[in-house]
Amino acid sequence: MATATEAEAMRRAIALASRALGSTSPNPVVGCVVLDAQGRTAGEGWHRRAGGPHAEVAALRAAAEAGHDVRGGTAVVTLEPCNHTGRTGPCAQALVDAGIARVVYAVADPNPTASGGAATLAAAGVRTEGGLLADEAAAGNAAWLTSVLHGRPFVTWKYAATLDGRSAAADGTSRWITSAASRADVHRLRAEADAVVVGSGTLRADDPHLAVRGGVLDEREVTQPLRVVVTTDAAVAPGARVLDDAAPTLIAVAEDADARHLAPAGTVRLPRAADGTGLDVRALLAALHARGVCSVLLEGGPTLAGAFLAAGAVDRVVGYLAPALLGAGPAALGHAGIGTVAETLRLDVTDVTRLGPDLRITATPRTTTATPAPAFAPTATATEEI
Amino acid sequence: MATATEAEAMRRAIALASRALGSTSPNPVVGCVVLDAQGRTAGEGWHRRAGGPHAEVAALRAAAEAGHDVRGGTAVVTLEPCNHTGRTGPCAQALVDAGIARVVYAVADPNPTASGGAATLAAAGVRTEGGLLADEAAAGNAAWLTSVLHGRPFVTWKYAATLDGRSAAADGTSRWITSAASRADVHRLRAEADAVVVGSGTLRADDPHLAVRGGVLDEREVTQPLRVVVTTDAAVAPGARVLDDAAPTLIAVAEDADARHLAPAGTVRLPRAADGTGLDVRALLAALHARGVCSVLLEGGPTLAGAFLAAGAVDRVVGYLAPALLGAGPAALGHAGIGTVAETLRLDVTDVTRLGPDLRITATPRTTTATPAPAFAPTATATEEI
Repeated sequence: MATATEAEAMRRAIALASRALGSTSPNPVVGCVVLDAQGRTAGEGWHRRAGGPHAEVAALRAAAEAGHDVRGGTAVVTLEPCNHTGRTGPCAQALVDAGIARVVYAVADPNPTASGGAATLAAAGVRTEGGLLADEAAAGNAAWLTSVLHGRPFVTWKYAATLDGRSAAADGTSRWITSAASRADVHRLRAEADAVVVGSGTLRADDPHLAVRGGVLDEREVTQPLRVVVTTDAAVAPGARVLDDAAPTLIAVAEDADARHLAPAGTVRLPRAADGTGLDVRALLAALHARGVCSVLLEGGPTLAGAFLAAGAVDRVVGYLAPALLGAGPAALGHAGIGTVAETLRLDVTDVTRLGPDLRITATPRTTTATPAPAFAPTATATEEI
Repeated sequence: MATATEAEAMRRAIALASRALGSTSPNPVVGCVVLDAQGRTAGEGWHRRAGGPHAEVAALRAAAEAGHDVRGGTAVVTLEPCNHTGRTGPCAQALVDAGIARVVYAVADPNPTASGGAATLAAAGVRTEGGLLADEAAAGNAAWLTSVLHGRPFVTWKYAATLDGRSAAADGTSRWITSAASRADVHRLRAEADAVVVGSGTLRADDPHLAVRGGVLDEREVTQPLRVVVTTDAAVAPGARVLDDAAPTLIAVAEDADARHLAPAGTVRLPRAADGTGLDVRALLAALHARGVCSVLLEGGPTLAGAFLAAGAVDRVVGYLAPALLGAGPAALGHAGIGTVAETLRLDVTDVTRLGPDLRITATPRTTTATPAPAFAPTATATEEI
């Protein structure tokens, strides 16, 4: 059994790991706290970027630099230490070499090329224990786990709307429906994502820049996400702001589109959707996965969001709701293949936070094949009066 | 200065008052706690219905029935005790007769025919103090205060929608988007209202019953609200459920409508709106005010809600948001006279509550003539990137 001190160290390690969200792909985020033999924190570390030191090595180094003796100590780490030699050496061996006596980790490594670290540690006489705060740690690594386990990026659909679900007014104006606090939070989401995706309608209407604005995130380095524009007919104006050099950009077009005006290096050709309404969402995600993208922030617009939802390709919904009403104007979400209330896409709310005057609602789609819970059964009973 | 005991008693009195919301019109809701000379609770009471005992008298009776001596004691009451003889005697005199030495009230009575109670008490040597928890008490009496001060009912617009603002699916089905917990809460709102208002579109689509369902409210007697159907052209089907005898019903039609098929006693003729889209909202509210209606629950649909909002006639918005997405179907709110984002109707969120899986958001429209707060200024600045 892990001790209370180890659990506290694990919570800290999870927090450390999250600092590098958006910067480590195709690697996971990992945090590590090394305790000395007396249970005192000797060193902390986290994996900052692919190719950089792993969290365990960073924590051991921090302990050494601080002059702390970690022999006989415990390494608390959010992911099972790796056992393979990639760009850096295996962490399991580094822990053994440092004289660590015990390793507590949260999530077992599902990656066949990296796993086995726990066995290596055990064989070297290190007491190992897995599963401590595994759910929390897995949630923090959802993007990487989705990538490894399902071969596609983790997709967050973000939208901003009024209480009546409008993302713009009748004349198309939308600056600003939500507050400055909400818009700053969107930059955090972008910074945590490997790619930001918009459709051609949003590109045309808003000419968005899509890069992470400096200064909004004070405790971490920002890796700019890949900006992805989905435009079936290659409709990108030459001066579009998304084409500047603030961040890399990828234009996804149909296989048969005339894309001679676009730079070939920044263009990917994809099959059209079976229903002819745009590009095939799964093919787009496969193309991004092939480029090492583990997490996608889908920023709209309503048509593209509907296509992603219809494809079952949204893992998380983050809605910024302004306490405001419009009564007219584009809806935040367009056609998602739902025709009747029994087909409603149900979600579970995981968080509600106030951001200035706004509400941020985070929710997770239920498995669409699941039977609706009784409370939602779309039946009108005789005793239920309206 | 009121004591902590008196403040606690006032909180209790405000809670007692709220038990009769929807049952006292055209009177206010009032709660009273009588403390004996030692500061112990001797009796509690609240005004239950027009024509019934006032809160102070009910509390004095309760104290007497329990055998408590209230001479030299304190009456803590949510509204300034009345000074006039209506269907019941003046409360101020009853307090004097009971030997009450001190009266603490929250809200001064703005009603010219009832006020002066504090002066009468002071003249009789009773120490009086007003203003204790006045904001909380006034919020609890918002309907009655709106009626007295503005000559119209307090209007709550209630809607139920998905996160993307749909109140039904593409095929018109809507049972059920929100959970049983949310629907039960709507019955509480109905019970607290003097009238429930729907438009002809909702009548046609849903054939709603609109009465308060028994059993959903366990700590109070329910007075059924007046059911009001707004139908410019008198389009009410003979078998509509709203015409049954579970609660009274009023049909509001245009002055020039052919309403020979409707019972004259249950019909009111109103001018059409200036823009020809329906009935004049202000005229409707005046007609309800004339019938003693202090509070209206506007249940829709989107067209009528838009007309109320465009008329500036909504005092409170209660939204039941289901964590669900539809992507198509009728919006919760229709045209409200807003054409561009600078005209957005802004609200202040006063409460967010989880009801089963759903969120209930309560918000108050800002004074529409007010200058928007800086955070909302609809200007795109050079440093604000999207």
